[in-house]
Amino acid sequence: MRVDRVPLGDLRPDPVALIARSAYLQLSLFETASSIAARASDLAERETITRVAAAILAQHTALVDLLAAEGQDPAAAMQPYTLEIDRYWRRFGETGWHESVLTLHLATGLLDDFLAQLGAGLPDPLADRYRAILTADIGQESLVSVLAAAVAADRRMTSRLALWGRRIVGDTLLVARSALAAAPGPDGAPTETEERRIEPVLNDLIAAHTRRMDRLGLTA
Amino acid sequence: MRVDRVPLGDLRPDPVALIARSAYLQLSLFETASSIAARASDLAERETITRVAAAILAQHTALVDLLAAEGQDPAAAMQPYTLEIDRYWRRFGETGWHESVLTLHLATGLLDDFLAQLGAGLPDPLADRYRAILTADIGQESLVSVLAAAVAADRRMTSRLALWGRRIVGDTLLVARSALAAAPGPDGAPTETEERRIEPVLNDLIAAHTRRMDRLGLTA
Repeated sequence: MRVDRVPLGDLRPDPVALIARSAYLQLSLFETASSIAARASDLAERETITRVAAAILAQHTALVDLLAAEGQDPAAAMQPYTLEIDRYWRRFGETGWHESVLTLHLATGLLDDFLAQLGAGLPDPLADRYRAILTADIGQESLVSVLAAAVAADRRMTSRLALWGRRIVGDTLLVARSALAAAPGPDGAPTETEERRIEPVLNDLIAAHTRRMDRLGLTA
Repeated sequence: MRVDRVPLGDLRPDPVALIARSAYLQLSLFETASSIAARASDLAERETITRVAAAILAQHTALVDLLAAEGQDPAAAMQPYTLEIDRYWRRFGETGWHESVLTLHLATGLLDDFLAQLGAGLPDPLADRYRAILTADIGQESLVSVLAAAVAADRRMTSRLALWGRRIVGDTLLVARSALAAAPGPDGAPTETEERRIEPVLNDLIAAHTRRMDRLGLTA
């Protein structure tokens, strides 16, 4: 499922900016996950989502610890990214429970993939530490099981979730892409050439997204 | 701060019942903590409460693992306690943010203390494992700092929080006490003698509660 091609590895993202943005993104993903858990009608599913929330929280905490190790005040470092990321979540509004689980599955899948690739451009040994955090298994398979069970139990769920998957992918790509603005190439600010170099990465992310949808029997 | 006298150690709580009740209580405390974190207006305080939520979540997860190690389905084991514990939280309704932080501080303090004492009656080596989980430091000092800063910044906070502390202690003692119904003494069901034996424990819990309030300059 991971995207192997790493043309982003040439970009030199600002370490504090990338780690802080990722840390806040994980905090918002954690809050999303725990509010989904709290809304579960089944206690076993609530437990499943809580485990995923715990894994995302561990990613957030590890990133905050990286920021502190870099001599940063984590809250101050994350502050510049709150507005944009909060806006990303608000755009989805109120939805059904299974739509929210799908959001969690697709957004963590796409964003963790993308950020891990971007992290290849960090200086050593930060690159390895950062990538180890972003590629950690947060329990995606358990989310797939919850969604697959819902699709199997109610065929109308298929079209609802397919629609929702298409709804959220664009905004999620935009949030991913905005991390690039802070990651100029070797020659400085992103140029038209950089932008063209980014295209295949976005295409790979969309291909991985489509595979996630396919696995659930959903048209991407 | 911990209560040393352990007259509850004579009671023989049903292991699965005590662990399952505690696991669900910690799940509900975790959800309370993460919703408080999400409502924080200051990112540093949000980070502080998120750390506390992570520690409570680790307690929940460890208790669920204990249940699984006892051959139990965790969700099924926790199910009988959901109604009463959900009702406990609902009783508090919507409140200000600092009231919620005080609830988290006082409820975790009182309940963890009480359950750790009750755990002394579990068979070995369960007793030690259970007590290690319940006596873990969840970051109470950081909650005290958040509350102390609020009291120092706004003197009206003192009376608001003092009122709130008195409001919640009774319900919290009731939730603690209901764990005893499932913990008959050596001779079977709790008798009037058992009830009298419990009195000093409740008095100790109230004394510890009063010390927590005093530390914040609040009248208990």
